[in-house]
Amino acid sequence: MRNILILIAYDGTAYCGWQVQKNGVSVASRLIEAIRSVSNQTVKLNGSGRTDAGVHAHGQTATFRFESKIPAEKLPDALNAKLPDDIRVLYAEDCESDFHARFDAKGKRYEYLIYNRYFASPFMRERAWHIRAPLDLDKMRAAAEIMCGTHDFAAYMASGSFVTDTVRTIYELSVSREAELIRISVSGSGFLYNMVRIIAGTLVYAGLGKMNLEQVRDNLLSLDRTTGAITAPPYGLYLCEVYYDREKNGILQSFGAKKY
Amino acid sequence: MRNILILIAYDGTAYCGWQVQKNGVSVASRLIEAIRSVSNQTVKLNGSGRTDAGVHAHGQTATFRFESKIPAEKLPDALNAKLPDDIRVLYAEDCESDFHARFDAKGKRYEYLIYNRYFASPFMRERAWHIRAPLDLDKMRAAAEIMCGTHDFAAYMASGSFVTDTVRTIYELSVSREAELIRISVSGSGFLYNMVRIIAGTLVYAGLGKMNLEQVRDNLLSLDRTTGAITAPPYGLYLCEVYYDREKNGILQSFGAKKY
Repeated sequence: MRNILILIAYDGTAYCGWQVQKNGVSVASRLIEAIRSVSNQTVKLNGSGRTDAGVHAHGQTATFRFESKIPAEKLPDALNAKLPDDIRVLYAEDCESDFHARFDAKGKRYEYLIYNRYFASPFMRERAWHIRAPLDLDKMRAAAEIMCGTHDFAAYMASGSFVTDTVRTIYELSVSREAELIRISVSGSGFLYNMVRIIAGTLVYAGLGKMNLEQVRDNLLSLDRTTGAITAPPYGLYLCEVYYDREKNGILQSFGAKKY
Repeated sequence: MRNILILIAYDGTAYCGWQVQKNGVSVASRLIEAIRSVSNQTVKLNGSGRTDAGVHAHGQTATFRFESKIPAEKLPDALNAKLPDDIRVLYAEDCESDFHARFDAKGKRYEYLIYNRYFASPFMRERAWHIRAPLDLDKMRAAAEIMCGTHDFAAYMASGSFVTDTVRTIYELSVSREAELIRISVSGSGFLYNMVRIIAGTLVYAGLGKMNLEQVRDNLLSLDRTTGAITAPPYGLYLCEVYYDREKNGILQSFGAKKY
């Protein structure tokens, strides 16, 4: 039985999210259908993690076991021919039999896009969060510094989640602007449910002057979701890279947006 | 009677083009409806020019006469509240009574976007022309130089057009790359029907090595559309700026993407 790793990009607008659900079409269900249609096998597809409805990906990863003679390098074209054009498989490889896209993930990088101009853009409707008032990038960056490193991020977890260990490490959190588009890039060891969207919401509150640095710090230390900023909408969020501790040809691998 | 100039951005994907047509919804018809709904008047809307089905705009301009007490600076928000979110009015002003968006236009700038990677992007589906094979930018730029300046562009006009004066001047034609995205920017005194899309098609043929510089030059000089490159698809094309010979506060105006 082969164990296949695939890298996937998708526009999440039309989907109920990554995960197969009873109601609504998911990205995973479309991929499972495409795999069935090229191999006649109904596989179990293990993604690196779920993405919510409307959330996008440049570099989602998933593993699945199947038997087929299609060489890995031909799989992306074969699957893309069966997939809708808002989902693209960018890469596939045969990997170690015990490798698992989720359990072996050592971290991830997300981006969150904000369109910051008085008038919304017809082109960024479901691609970025529209903020009319000018955002102060220096204030956003100062708030980002508070979040970097290892913290108990209980205040940055959607209420109703029941994860008990809420300590996570943010490796890097940057805020950059290119004309009207503000890009938040965040990499870390792992993220709680809605954590990146709460980070984005908090940075926007900081950039608008709705929260000062002390309030950002106090909110993080409070471990209390209810005192913080709003959760940024899903359609500004992009899963960009998933990190693995794998060596391939002597090079430690990550999979993601920048490589394919 | 006031004479109003508006600046409009739109994602052309859902429309049969700018111009009102019997079948299909046009951008202009959506704007006329919005103007009617804020002023109770059915205006005649004069765009700077037509854009085809699927073609986008960052800076289309249009003029119309109407009577209303809504101040020009409040018009964009008022109209946007009535418009679908793939059309945004970015600016409005009261202009001279004889000013006409089309007849007074002195030139235009368009962009054409190409997504140049083996795999298509889920995010650029209706926003850029996907070219799988690597494009040689030096070759594209050398071909662009041949097109710059004043020429009879009969070879760059859709067959079936019956314009008799086919001489036009291209002021600037640049080709730049940012990661997978190639941006062609072209400004000129005016453009024949499909001219920008034929320029883009020709530059792509040059970048792929399908036409060498001599063939590009010979095709232009032939004044014959049938010997040239293909017409690039509409969804990569963006109307960015319309130039006018107007002074406002002592400054010569153009209207377009970069200003709002």
